[in-house]
Amino acid sequence: MIDSGSLVFLSSAEKKDTFLISLEEGGKLETRLGVISHEDVMRAGFGGRVRSHNGNLFYITKPSLGEYLRRIKRRTQIVFPKEAGYILLQLDVKPGARVLECGTGSGGMTSVFAHFVGDEGRVYSYDERGEFVELARRNCKRWKVDHRVEFKTRNISEGFDEVNVDALFLDLPDPWNYLNQARNALALGRRMGALLPTFNQIERFLRALQEKGFIDVEVIEIFHRNLKTDPNRIRPEDRMIGHTGYLIFATSVIDFDGGV
Amino acid sequence: MIDSGSLVFLSSAEKKDTFLISLEEGGKLETRLGVISHEDVMRAGFGGRVRSHNGNLFYITKPSLGEYLRRIKRRTQIVFPKEAGYILLQLDVKPGARVLECGTGSGGMTSVFAHFVGDEGRVYSYDERGEFVELARRNCKRWKVDHRVEFKTRNISEGFDEVNVDALFLDLPDPWNYLNQARNALALGRRMGALLPTFNQIERFLRALQEKGFIDVEVIEIFHRNLKTDPNRIRPEDRMIGHTGYLIFATSVIDFDGGV
Amino acid sequence: MIDSGSLVFLSSAEKKDTFLISLEEGGKLETRLGVISHEDVMRAGFGGRVRSHNGNLFYITKPSLGEYLRRIKRRTQIVFPKEAGYILLQLDVKPGARVLECGTGSGGMTSVFAHFVGDEGRVYSYDERGEFVELARRNCKRWKVDHRVEFKTRNISEGFDEVNVDALFLDLPDPWNYLNQARNALALGRRMGALLPTFNQIERFLRALQEKGFIDVEVIEIFHRNLKTDPNRIRPEDRMIGHTGYLIFATSVIDFDGGV
Amino acid sequence: MIDSGSLVFLSSAEKKDTFLISLEEGGKLETRLGVISHEDVMRAGFGGRVRSHNGNLFYITKPSLGEYLRRIKRRTQIVFPKEAGYILLQLDVKPGARVLECGTGSGGMTSVFAHFVGDEGRVYSYDERGEFVELARRNCKRWKVDHRVEFKTRNISEGFDEVNVDALFLDLPDPWNYLNQARNALALGRRMGALLPTFNQIERFLRALQEKGFIDVEVIEIFHRNLKTDPNRIRPEDRMIGHTGYLIFATSVIDFDGGV
Repeated sequence: MIDSGSLVFLSSAEKKDTFLISLEEGGKLETRLGVISHEDVMRAGFGGRVRSHNGNLFYITKPSLGEYLRRIKRRTQIVFPKEAGYILLQLDVKPGARVLECGTGSGGMTSVFAHFVGDEGRVYSYDERGEFVELARRNCKRWKVDHRVEFKTRNISEGFDEVNVDALFLDLPDPWNYLNQARNALALGRRMGALLPTFNQIERFLRALQEKGFIDVEVIEIFHRNLKTDPNRIRPEDRMIGHTGYLIFATSVIDFDGGV
Repeated sequence: MIDSGSLVFLSSAEKKDTFLISLEEGGKLETRLGVISHEDVMRAGFGGRVRSHNGNLFYITKPSLGEYLRRIKRRTQIVFPKEAGYILLQLDVKPGARVLECGTGSGGMTSVFAHFVGDEGRVYSYDERGEFVELARRNCKRWKVDHRVEFKTRNISEGFDEVNVDALFLDLPDPWNYLNQARNALALGRRMGALLPTFNQIERFLRALQEKGFIDVEVIEIFHRNLKTDPNRIRPEDRMIGHTGYLIFATSVIDFDGGV
Repeated sequence: MIDSGSLVFLSSAEKKDTFLISLEEGGKLETRLGVISHEDVMRAGFGGRVRSHNGNLFYITKPSLGEYLRRIKRRTQIVFPKEAGYILLQLDVKPGARVLECGTGSGGMTSVFAHFVGDEGRVYSYDERGEFVELARRNCKRWKVDHRVEFKTRNISEGFDEVNVDALFLDLPDPWNYLNQARNALALGRRMGALLPTFNQIERFLRALQEKGFIDVEVIEIFHRNLKTDPNRIRPEDRMIGHTGYLIFATSVIDFDGGV
Repeated sequence: MIDSGSLVFLSSAEKKDTFLISLEEGGKLETRLGVISHEDVMRAGFGGRVRSHNGNLFYITKPSLGEYLRRIKRRTQIVFPKEAGYILLQLDVKPGARVLECGTGSGGMTSVFAHFVGDEGRVYSYDERGEFVELARRNCKRWKVDHRVEFKTRNISEGFDEVNVDALFLDLPDPWNYLNQARNALALGRRMGALLPTFNQIERFLRALQEKGFIDVEVIEIFHRNLKTDPNRIRPEDRMIGHTGYLIFATSVIDFDGGV
């Protein structure tokens, strides 16, 4: 039995069709393979099967965070699973941690941070664009982690409200303009991350990090390639994502040049 | 002030030398840039600085889990950060989760799972090679998460002790031989992962997954490329890791063929 | 002045529109940016400019072989420039060389070989599918190298007509079935190449090469990533080709097991 | 029978040892697997076998241009086969073509161009560093194509001696300083190539190409990954080259801004 309000993943047994849906009483999912009743899904449970009104079989599974991230409703470029996972290991994210991010965007990375800090942790997410904050809040609510997030709809020029956070992630086009603010919010000796799509941005950011005295600077790029899964014809997929962005990490220490 | 027993990361201000050490009272770190007293490090704190006996400056920072993983004492191939992060998003790992892995190996992935399940969660880690289990236990202890792990030194042919776990990861050369055991341990509708280095292994595993009725099978490969960080000469590093392994994920559902 | 019958490349000065056309007297090119007269193009010459009937500017340039290959009329998967170039350096292709290939396919690789062997060289191209041979012949004619190619529309089970060729390329789904034929046609101590898309094919081919006694076996994979060229926003393209095929090379020597 | 002066490739039948040598009468090759007489090699011929003085077996094969390029005696970074092959397809290189390059470096790309233009073609290669020109000349002589190359030991600020060349390749750290010279040498409407290792250089070069009015600008990156060839354990090699350089191509047309 799955609770109403839960997120489930449905996969057609015959076709490639898959769906990520939030269950609600009386709900219906209309597909090209027929209509599926949400209540049938609740009754069948995770790992169970359900048939559409015209007899097509679907399996019900628990969606992974990665799958959720890929399908998130978005109005911005989102952070992809290949980068999101790596960020978790480079920043000090863990149950109970306090994580600060700016900007919020569509809330993809916000959901990931909120997932892993648990109920004891806290995510502070800043964006001055109110419509994004609303979208992100809905997306976090869908993954049932919105109660772990404080959304703040404002510009960060004057700085963040928080101090001594464990981890900080900047998903901004001009992170070099906010290094003083970042430094004041992040606990000393902790790592900060950023995601930037162009070489020109990397260059400006590296110069700023160097000038301000951040250390252990790391710039990386991650590729993800899917393979076809027919055991008789194993091969990589014909097309892949060629670029999302570069990840930059750096650590804040006591020698910091706050001047401009 | 940093507690004795803590893990710290030391970076030379002038050279590329870096060290990951566990602090202990009266401890000394000998480097080619001089000797550093652990007590000086404790006093300086995270983000602070310390000088070696002959005056070389080092910064003290909090090591990331990724850095820890790269430097783990190992007697086996370890899971790299690029894969470890992605696994976290594909399996149902989160604070409070119960995660099962086999084999333990050097305990790299064990540490990662134990880090993210928190004190409310539990990692069950199987390996029949006692010397690996001992190494993995020490490695988890170093990251201070060993109390979240139950190590089991035995062969898994007869199955796992646990049922209904949230996530399962197989780091074995022949995972196709343990699909019945995996299926019995994993909660229905949850995702299982494996890491395999060769095409031949992928082929055998894909056939077995198909025969047993696992669904939503995914095979991927992740590349990680470092860039040099001099802002006047930004470029990828000359050399990179060409291959670690392929990640395979699949979901267990009610239609399972336990025969054979 | 460009001769009638020449292949030219047209690039819009304002838009991304580009065209590869064969000039003919009285010819017209219809585009969404207006109609262009072939005779205007001939008069303007390579490097010159031409305007469409409604005033849009186009530049006229000499098409590269790589561009020709990308735009070839095809009914099969073609060999991409990234692989075609590498093949040239691994096999003994040069002015005056005798090169054998099978199958012909759409004639992309045939054109490349014919381009580089020059008028003194010779390409022998086998395919049992008559409609492909016709297409390939037209494609080679378009690049004005068809006089260097002998097309042979037949099955190669009984072997090739040629002996002692300098280079041999197999673009077949089952090259392992033709190693005796290949060995008889290729000059001793020369290198042979093949292109295969799946792991399963590589495995079978590697076993056959090993059994037959081919040496210096090499399997490689080539990736090609385009970058955006706006100097203010330099970055890789969002999408790239994830896979075309694996290249396998091997050398035939005196110890050959023709049995089986 | 192989002529004295020929280049041959020797592969141990038992070990991974391989050698690229120029045969000479009375010559001896000393290896850890014994001494091999050049005259034995000449007698055995391509595809034949030879034994060292202590009985170890070696096969004799015709070296590929790619293998030659990898083993060239070098005092500079060389162009790798993965890039060299692609360059051939993007520039107008073919039997009889006139190709201009600057700088000469160790002569790797010079050899490749000279190989493919044949005895009817011509390569003009500029470098102001006399010691490199001498090395390049020896390298081209070893591949027996030096008679097709005119080496010019001088700075190119005042321009090239040639006009109307078919193809032009700039392997310089600051190609943006030589666009007027390049434009004057290259036939109108033909493609020029360059190889640059850093983002900063790409940025400067793209700006200069844009200002000067070059068209159809292309920036690409090529990766090459080797696979292990044991049919029972097929997998990519653990390590690969992460970066050599970016290839930039552009075409010169009538609208050119020669101003500074």
